Amino acid sequence: VNVDDLPTPALVVDIDALDRNLATMADLRPGDALRPHVKAHKCTALAARQAGVGHRRFTCATPREVAGMVGAGVGDDLLLANEVLDPMRLGALAALQDEARITIAVDSTEAVRAAADAGLREVVIDVLVGLPRCGCPPEDAPALADLARQRGMAVRGVMGYEGHLMMLDDTAEQAVRVAEVTRTLREVHGRVGGELITTGGTGTFHLHPTAVEGVYYEVQAGSYALMDSHYAGASLPFEQACWVVGTVISVADRWAVADVGLKALGMDHGNPPVVDGTPWFYSDEHVTFGATPLPQAGERVRVQPAHVDPTMAMHDAAWVVSGDEVVDRWAIDLRGW
Amino acid sequence: VNVDDLPTPALVVDIDALDRNLATMADLRPGDALRPHVKAHKCTALAARQAGVGHRRFTCATPREVAGMVGAGVGDDLLLANEVLDPMRLGALAALQDEARITIAVDSTEAVRAAADAGLREVVIDVLVGLPRCGCPPEDAPALADLARQRGMAVRGVMGYEGHLMMLDDTAEQAVRVAEVTRTLREVHGRVGGELITTGGTGTFHLHPTAVEGVYYEVQAGSYALMDSHYAGASLPFEQACWVVGTVISVADRWAVADVGLKALGMDHGNPPVVDGTPWFYSDEHVTFGATPLPQAGERVRVQPAHVDPTMAMHDAAWVVSGDEVVDRWAIDLRGW
Repeated sequence: VNVDDLPTPALVVDIDALDRNLATMADLRPGDALRPHVKAHKCTALAARQAGVGHRRFTCATPREVAGMVGAGVGDDLLLANEVLDPMRLGALAALQDEARITIAVDSTEAVRAAADAGLREVVIDVLVGLPRCGCPPEDAPALADLARQRGMAVRGVMGYEGHLMMLDDTAEQAVRVAEVTRTLREVHGRVGGELITTGGTGTFHLHPTAVEGVYYEVQAGSYALMDSHYAGASLPFEQACWVVGTVISVADRWAVADVGLKALGMDHGNPPVVDGTPWFYSDEHVTFGATPLPQAGERVRVQPAHVDPTMAMHDAAWVVSGDEVVDRWAIDLRGW
Repeated sequence: VNVDDLPTPALVVDIDALDRNLATMADLRPGDALRPHVKAHKCTALAARQAGVGHRRFTCATPREVAGMVGAGVGDDLLLANEVLDPMRLGALAALQDEARITIAVDSTEAVRAAADAGLREVVIDVLVGLPRCGCPPEDAPALADLARQRGMAVRGVMGYEGHLMMLDDTAEQAVRVAEVTRTLREVHGRVGGELITTGGTGTFHLHPTAVEGVYYEVQAGSYALMDSHYAGASLPFEQACWVVGTVISVADRWAVADVGLKALGMDHGNPPVVDGTPWFYSDEHVTFGATPLPQAGERVRVQPAHVDPTMAMHDAAWVVSGDEVVDRWAIDLRGW
């Protein structure tokens, strides 16, 4: 099957570009120095490919992602890098602990108690490092670790996500500020214990050490595998490896319309770029775009995701291509919660 | 089951508010004066409720929506209000014509030929009325209708969607400009023939006639059923009938975080409002928000969709509630393409 024969809109993964991205990252942060984040692709087949280049540990954002990874048998150490308070969901996670090592992030006494009550065995203490989201103040981390241990859980270390530093234009300033985060996490880790400091993302993966004095640093990058137009704005050694392919269904005097709309594309990072065109606006099932010359009805057009994570979550499968040949179809099987 | 016991994020439909919206619209545009657009909810159970108040004809945006409606046996006259050029998809639609009446929009010779080649029996001529998207120039419509008839298809009339007029602040200007659209469509219809003028949406439903001189006007409103914060900015007689419910999973000194993120909410109309709070920003699986007082960890929070159509498409089911009681669960079964 040729990519031009796929029904559209079609989510397409370029396996060669993907493999180059995976190889580049595996060279720079080999093995357990990277804990790939599956939220960026929600696809166990893609995670298995990440495992194939040496990463055994994975990061998840939702209980569904953890359960799906366990079900697929991919990875032997799964971190839910997010707080969960729902006893039912936590109990379901706890029931999976005989099949896989499962660790959950906690940042409050409520979260610690909920995890302990559900029977979870291992936690990391999630520390606030500047992004106003989850994470306890650094000074609260030791007490939370103590509480977790009192409740019978092991504390594997600390977590901190510096999401506010992923895309700084001034790379020197970015390096300084990420180093501050790393220093904070190391200080907190010294009072919390455990073997792990888990942190970072695609925009800062190169600014974290891999190990210092016996403490292991792992980076939770996800977007590096497939990339998007947002991260393309940073100077990163990764290339675009996924697209949404559409068909031109209507052509006017100054614009054309393709059947790739905002139900097929994450829109929180602005208009996704149209290859060889300029998007005017996206509707539910359309993009209206300009191009010189305009394409003809029936021609194909490629759209670059602006934010890969929600884009992947909108499709039930990705077509895997090598050049123009469709070589596989991967279910986006970690969708939902 | 109580709504507070649902796993979150949970898409919730308030059946009482929904029924009030459906009753209000059915009073104003009864029966075939409304062709409800299923793209707004992608749910055959909700479409069946629209059929229950008297609408037998439905509008669809994708082949998948048409096939799903046929499969569910809801509606006896389905309009695909969009151009499709893919022979495989068109053939699949044609194969459904013995189970339901199916009509497709066409706006080019390519679209007419593709529909005819696939064996489709009925079309409407899609006319450009100001929104730069699909639709032929009005002067091209008669020739397209002739071509369709030459190719053995029936022409049911004309379609025009004035999406650019849905949300004008100046309602007097809106009425004038929608009347211009209606006039254009009537003139084109006079040269094209057929019994239908199909047009409009939730923002202009009240500005179109229902029938003039034997020509039937149907409005393709969809959002009116569930509403969103975007349409809440217009003065419409419909109320919010769906929400995404989250759980507060983390509380800091100045903000709280709930497990409702941008993978659960359409983001193309800006930040969805948080009830009793102010969203700071949305992440994939989180909203960081302010509130006075801040909620406690474990409390529930409701988010109002900013754009209902993509929000519905992100969930596999909606929980139907009456007050705080969960009374049903509806599959969002028309997702995808």
